[in-house]
Amino acid sequence: MKCCTCLFLFVTFLKVVFLHAFNCCVVSAADGQADKQVGLRDLSEPLIDHSEGQLFLSETFKIIVEEVLCKGTDVTQKVCDWKEPEELAWLLDLELRATGEPQHKLLERVKDVAKYSIKTSHPRFFNQLYGGVDYHSLAGRFLTEALNTNLFTYEVAPVFVLMENEVLRGLRQLVGWTEGDGIFCPGGSTSNMFAMNLARYQLFPEVKSRGLWGLPRLTVFTSSESHYSVKKGAAYLGIGTDNVIVVKVDDGGRMIPKDLDEKIMLAKSQGTVPFLVSCTAGTTVQGAFDPLDHIADVCEKHKLWMHVDAAWGGSVLFSKQHRHLMKGVDRANSVGWNPHKMLVAGLQCSALLLQDTTNLLRRCHSASASYLFQQDKFYDVNLDVGDKSVQCSRKVDCLKLWLMWKAVGSAGLEERVDKAFIHVRYLVEEMKKREGFQLLHEPEFVNVCFWFTPPSMRGNEKHADYQERLAKVAPVIKERMMKQGTMMVGYQPLGNKVNFFRVIAFSPLLSKKDMDFFLDEIERLGNDL
Amino acid sequence: MKCCTCLFLFVTFLKVVFLHAFNCCVVSAADGQADKQVGLRDLSEPLIDHSEGQLFLSETFKIIVEEVLCKGTDVTQKVCDWKEPEELAWLLDLELRATGEPQHKLLERVKDVAKYSIKTSHPRFFNQLYGGVDYHSLAGRFLTEALNTNLFTYEVAPVFVLMENEVLRGLRQLVGWTEGDGIFCPGGSTSNMFAMNLARYQLFPEVKSRGLWGLPRLTVFTSSESHYSVKKGAAYLGIGTDNVIVVKVDDGGRMIPKDLDEKIMLAKSQGTVPFLVSCTAGTTVQGAFDPLDHIADVCEKHKLWMHVDAAWGGSVLFSKQHRHLMKGVDRANSVGWNPHKMLVAGLQCSALLLQDTTNLLRRCHSASASYLFQQDKFYDVNLDVGDKSVQCSRKVDCLKLWLMWKAVGSAGLEERVDKAFIHVRYLVEEMKKREGFQLLHEPEFVNVCFWFTPPSMRGNEKHADYQERLAKVAPVIKERMMKQGTMMVGYQPLGNKVNFFRVIAFSPLLSKKDMDFFLDEIERLGNDL
Repeated sequence: MKCCTCLFLFVTFLKVVFLHAFNCCVVSAADGQADKQVGLRDLSEPLIDHSEGQLFLSETFKIIVEEVLCKGTDVTQKVCDWKEPEELAWLLDLELRATGEPQHKLLERVKDVAKYSIKTSHPRFFNQLYGGVDYHSLAGRFLTEALNTNLFTYEVAPVFVLMENEVLRGLRQLVGWTEGDGIFCPGGSTSNMFAMNLARYQLFPEVKSRGLWGLPRLTVFTSSESHYSVKKGAAYLGIGTDNVIVVKVDDGGRMIPKDLDEKIMLAKSQGTVPFLVSCTAGTTVQGAFDPLDHIADVCEKHKLWMHVDAAWGGSVLFSKQHRHLMKGVDRANSVGWNPHKMLVAGLQCSALLLQDTTNLLRRCHSASASYLFQQDKFYDVNLDVGDKSVQCSRKVDCLKLWLMWKAVGSAGLEERVDKAFIHVRYLVEEMKKREGFQLLHEPEFVNVCFWFTPPSMRGNEKHADYQERLAKVAPVIKERMMKQGTMMVGYQPLGNKVNFFRVIAFSPLLSKKDMDFFLDEIERLGNDL
Repeated sequence: MKCCTCLFLFVTFLKVVFLHAFNCCVVSAADGQADKQVGLRDLSEPLIDHSEGQLFLSETFKIIVEEVLCKGTDVTQKVCDWKEPEELAWLLDLELRATGEPQHKLLERVKDVAKYSIKTSHPRFFNQLYGGVDYHSLAGRFLTEALNTNLFTYEVAPVFVLMENEVLRGLRQLVGWTEGDGIFCPGGSTSNMFAMNLARYQLFPEVKSRGLWGLPRLTVFTSSESHYSVKKGAAYLGIGTDNVIVVKVDDGGRMIPKDLDEKIMLAKSQGTVPFLVSCTAGTTVQGAFDPLDHIADVCEKHKLWMHVDAAWGGSVLFSKQHRHLMKGVDRANSVGWNPHKMLVAGLQCSALLLQDTTNLLRRCHSASASYLFQQDKFYDVNLDVGDKSVQCSRKVDCLKLWLMWKAVGSAGLEERVDKAFIHVRYLVEEMKKREGFQLLHEPEFVNVCFWFTPPSMRGNEKHADYQERLAKVAPVIKERMMKQGTMMVGYQPLGNKVNFFRVIAFSPLLSKKDMDFFLDEIERLGNDL
């Protein structure tokens, strides 16, 4: 890869320059090492040597560029360097010991961690709902780490309190709300759980102080293909998974509003109190969009909180061409949206957006700690946003998205979304031209779910053991691709459908040849089965 | 600052070299810009230009070193550059627009974000329970960001599944457990909430499916000076804040075991079911350590889950000299510990450690999503640790701690803890030599709580309005120091004690002169009040 070769030479040159330059300003790195041996140093000397530390950081930066960003995105290099756990543990020498190690040894460890980690930015990483790399976002993430800011008060996070507010405003505008509230959460599951807690609190504010005991049994509604965090949330929040009522989906995996309406009425007739419908915009496996407008009608009829888990699909709102998939989203009470997925903002970046303007989030979650949220501060304490979360320490997740958005604009993000759809269209059309590939369903989004039938099994679809044999195809192909390291794609069963592949294509690093490679590689790995 | 001046010249030189080197391997950056104007590019071209992106990343790295790591830790520079919110919003130009911006403009933005952010690594940032910088940890954090790994399966996170396991093992060993379980959480509040959920589930496993309705009213016990996340957790988990029974503390802020015992018996007599005692090792304000051994006796007597919130104080376990503060911790069921605090591992790094060996964590939290945790994988699926969390996407928080621990060893971390105690001892002794400084209590840890009485008020302690006037001193001094940017320290009231300062001294960047400066500066800012 031209760029990387050049960079490698350049980096070697840099090493010499860096070492020389830093040596000029290193005051006592060597002395410092000696002092460490004799125990506590004098109080007049700090324990950290900046020059030594910055040199290490610079060397690490170079390894990151070489190993993760150049090799790690180069299609002539592996996506993964598979090792059995025992061997990998041995290679990494993970044990933590009493004494420290010299810098050169530590740099080898940095290299090893990079070498044996999965290259999630690689164009042939089709495995998950995240992947790819955006350099502006990554720059924002490095800056976030270096600033080490805790996003709870304006006092310690002035820039990020204002920035988070602005990014949330930008996302809300795309939902269709000119006002509202919101917060960044550590992942989409937390966003969904916050929505559940808010819906419960709005209906029964006394739950915060008294708990669930005085309340009637509450029920939540979500489709059979929604994310598992709805059930996890119900368990965690004390509601119980039995009180998550599963609504049927159509062939494409979309919630059926009529079944929702019936299940709500049934639940009411059984003496429970329905309080939340958790819809999905972009299901995890099939990428289906629940019909939000029709669900909103049902929610209005029964006066239920409507939450949209758009962790995966929310990014279509950037696209004039595809935002119709989420028609009706502006009628929701809350929307969860993970820009760390399709927009490649980097883990983690998950926003919970609210239509509420009554400070519900703060009222529901606040504990008003007097050591942190003092009311006699010299600035407007409404800027101390930390009490809106159930977290205390909270990472800054807005800068990476803000910087990327500033860099390419809404138009640039729209282009990425549109291009992902075009890639998927190309992949699907090519798939149809080949024998052995069978789609579960025409994709609605950028998830393509399909079975691969090896030549030996073709024509035997009616055989009694066909499904059983088909179920074993994907795991074997997966094992082979992992061990050869050529690409990564996930598989799973779904309902009565046996194991099928789910290829996720949205990374801005993708091009047509990666789609062609994907199909060729499935054939190469599976044709002898 | 010698190091920074030298670095500045070096960086200027680098800019020239970098620009030249990258120009050699930039294939079509300029063309790419032009293409963006005409809409979607051909499918044969990815949307990201690596050379352009890596150049931007390198330039950002240089800004980080200059602004955050050199200037941001230089005592001749400001800790904060205070701006009113309206002015700051204007300076940052936060608005997100349709079109992107050129690279040089974006680099200015990176600089502005750094400039107006609080320098939490600065030796004069005494404001919070985090601060300082460790370069090895920071290198680990950059690598974590670049690898963009989601810690849920061995398949996508082979290195980090094994590494997290090893780091948790190392932390458990310090607690005194040879076996057990654990997980990294997004902050100490989440760790505390997980413990609450586990304790509840262990006693009533049916809560997961049925919720709290079938159960008797549950009660939690914690001291009046424990972290507010215990109440937040009770609200969030459906238990209710009224069911958090507050236990009295002694003068130093430590839970009184006798009062705990009595309150448990009272709660039982009222028909509730006590299930959890949440102790604190290192309270947020005073840094007090609850007497764990005595509390363990009470928990054993009543068969209650004992959780230790050691988010702040846990790091004393590295020190042979100071670990006695946590005597009895090995008798706990769970321990929460944030190495992002005293160990300077960087936000966020929070471990929940468990003595349990029955897979309680997985049983309590799992949802067994078939698209992620397939059981027919070709490796041991027990390595897929994601289902132990209520999160789905989960950031890698172990690498930064692992790399730092490898770099300095347990002995190096012990030295940091010991040195923090020595600094605090020095500060306290110096404080006693000066007029106007009054300690709330002799510090047990590295929190020093004190009132500063300006000369005009000295001798008037018996006046009717003395407390009222004293309460206003800290906020004024705080406003002055923020606006001048010289240092940052927090204040708060506590019970019937009016506003006092809480100085937190533990950063490995500290030296004696920072302690002296602190005292001088409080006097300088407050002597005319």
